[in-house]
Amino acid sequence: MISSAVTISLVEQARGGPFVLWDDLAAGVRLAKELGYDAVEIFAPGPDAVDRGQFKSLLEETGLKCAAVGTGAGMVISQLSLTDTEAAKRQAAIDFVKSMIDFGGEFSAPAIIGSMQGRWTTDLPKDKALELLGEALSELGEYAKQYNVPLIYEPLNRYETNLCNTMADGVQLIESQSISNVVLLADLFHMNIEETCIAQGLKDGGRHIGHVHFVDSNRRPAGNGHMKYEPIVSALKEINYQAYASAEAFPWPDPTAAAKQTIEMFQKLFR
Amino acid sequence: MISSAVTISLVEQARGGPFVLWDDLAAGVRLAKELGYDAVEIFAPGPDAVDRGQFKSLLEETGLKCAAVGTGAGMVISQLSLTDTEAAKRQAAIDFVKSMIDFGGEFSAPAIIGSMQGRWTTDLPKDKALELLGEALSELGEYAKQYNVPLIYEPLNRYETNLCNTMADGVQLIESQSISNVVLLADLFHMNIEETCIAQGLKDGGRHIGHVHFVDSNRRPAGNGHMKYEPIVSALKEINYQAYASAEAFPWPDPTAAAKQTIEMFQKLFR
Repeated sequence: MISSAVTISLVEQARGGPFVLWDDLAAGVRLAKELGYDAVEIFAPGPDAVDRGQFKSLLEETGLKCAAVGTGAGMVISQLSLTDTEAAKRQAAIDFVKSMIDFGGEFSAPAIIGSMQGRWTTDLPKDKALELLGEALSELGEYAKQYNVPLIYEPLNRYETNLCNTMADGVQLIESQSISNVVLLADLFHMNIEETCIAQGLKDGGRHIGHVHFVDSNRRPAGNGHMKYEPIVSALKEINYQAYASAEAFPWPDPTAAAKQTIEMFQKLFR
Repeated sequence: MISSAVTISLVEQARGGPFVLWDDLAAGVRLAKELGYDAVEIFAPGPDAVDRGQFKSLLEETGLKCAAVGTGAGMVISQLSLTDTEAAKRQAAIDFVKSMIDFGGEFSAPAIIGSMQGRWTTDLPKDKALELLGEALSELGEYAKQYNVPLIYEPLNRYETNLCNTMADGVQLIESQSISNVVLLADLFHMNIEETCIAQGLKDGGRHIGHVHFVDSNRRPAGNGHMKYEPIVSALKEINYQAYASAEAFPWPDPTAAAKQTIEMFQKLFR
């Protein structure tokens, strides 16, 4: 069964970004519960930004799970990249992700590597960048095992990375370097730009897909763009996808309406 | 009737960009003729990069038209923007576009403003940037009248500009500032990211649309992505669109195959 989740951002510097709920963790978790979500996905500035005791109480109070924790703040706030050409900065990036794996791990939630993957450049050829990324993902996937969670790696559209843009690229990275305990994130917004066919992209990812960002073509909540969801739902069934459809979308027209719209579409499509 | 065109890039610095044919103007024009295109769209480094006598001969020899000339090299090579905060640099941008209007005008071809529109920033608020852009488009639209051609303005996706992303944004810019002789470019790749519904976006643009970039969702030649063309063709009919469907697409899998694929799709959809 596919479960529903909604994003909560606590990162002021990411204002304007594709997160549904903002600022107030307690209010966000309670709203998610009220609307019928199964879980929340947390985008936090760092591992200590969330009062873990309070978060634990909120999850117990509501019965919600933590679906995943983002690591993008490492890039947005501190410009940390797993493919930085400086070894010391790569190490700082790895240390930051480990601290986020520790944070998520306490709630049985995997961490997501998105913008922290970086890019290849004239100073760092693509094959070398992919090798560095693969090494980092390997180490971080190993590290996550202690919490019985995978590490989630997200191919992004061409404007956000030049490393892996499609699910097939992600599979190639994982399989060619025999990386274990790393799953792929299928973000429908990125896939609308990159995949020849979105449903086929999901099938390309297959058993490697471990998280889905459920969003529309224009990054508004599902149902507000031109995404055709029926073939997507069929493809997820075909690959026996059993994890989260998580709303990483703009808070459009406002956070509450966006959360409501997404859960209604979720129930229509997946229940 | 809608006419077909294919892009030819002569800009080395734009290598890897979404242009079908490359480097050799004569070979490009002759291939376009051989494949059955009505016209070519030229992306040149500047007004003097093309031997005008040779180009005139090529058009006479083949009977092809010049559909439009791009101005993006002003940004790519010289970082010129119509919304630069420095008046002298804005003037240089306007002068460059005028020189491209003169070049295109000789072949009855309009110039296209895409990346030269720039962006709003913390130093230049959005309303001020749109005002500067509107003033520049007004002046350049007036300037183009001497050649009996419009100026073409292209809304781009969110990663390439933050000024106008949708056809509705473009209409708002043109109508709110009563800009004359400026038409909109509907690029299907950008529209796939930005429009709630691509067909509705074309209807939003309506009589203002004066040029179409005919391309697929992933910026490969039409037919290589997940674009649904039937509603697009219907919308263009509904707005009585009568200008070019021009292939601005990656040379995928190679320039000749991309040009062949596009004209086949064009004939299937528009003939």
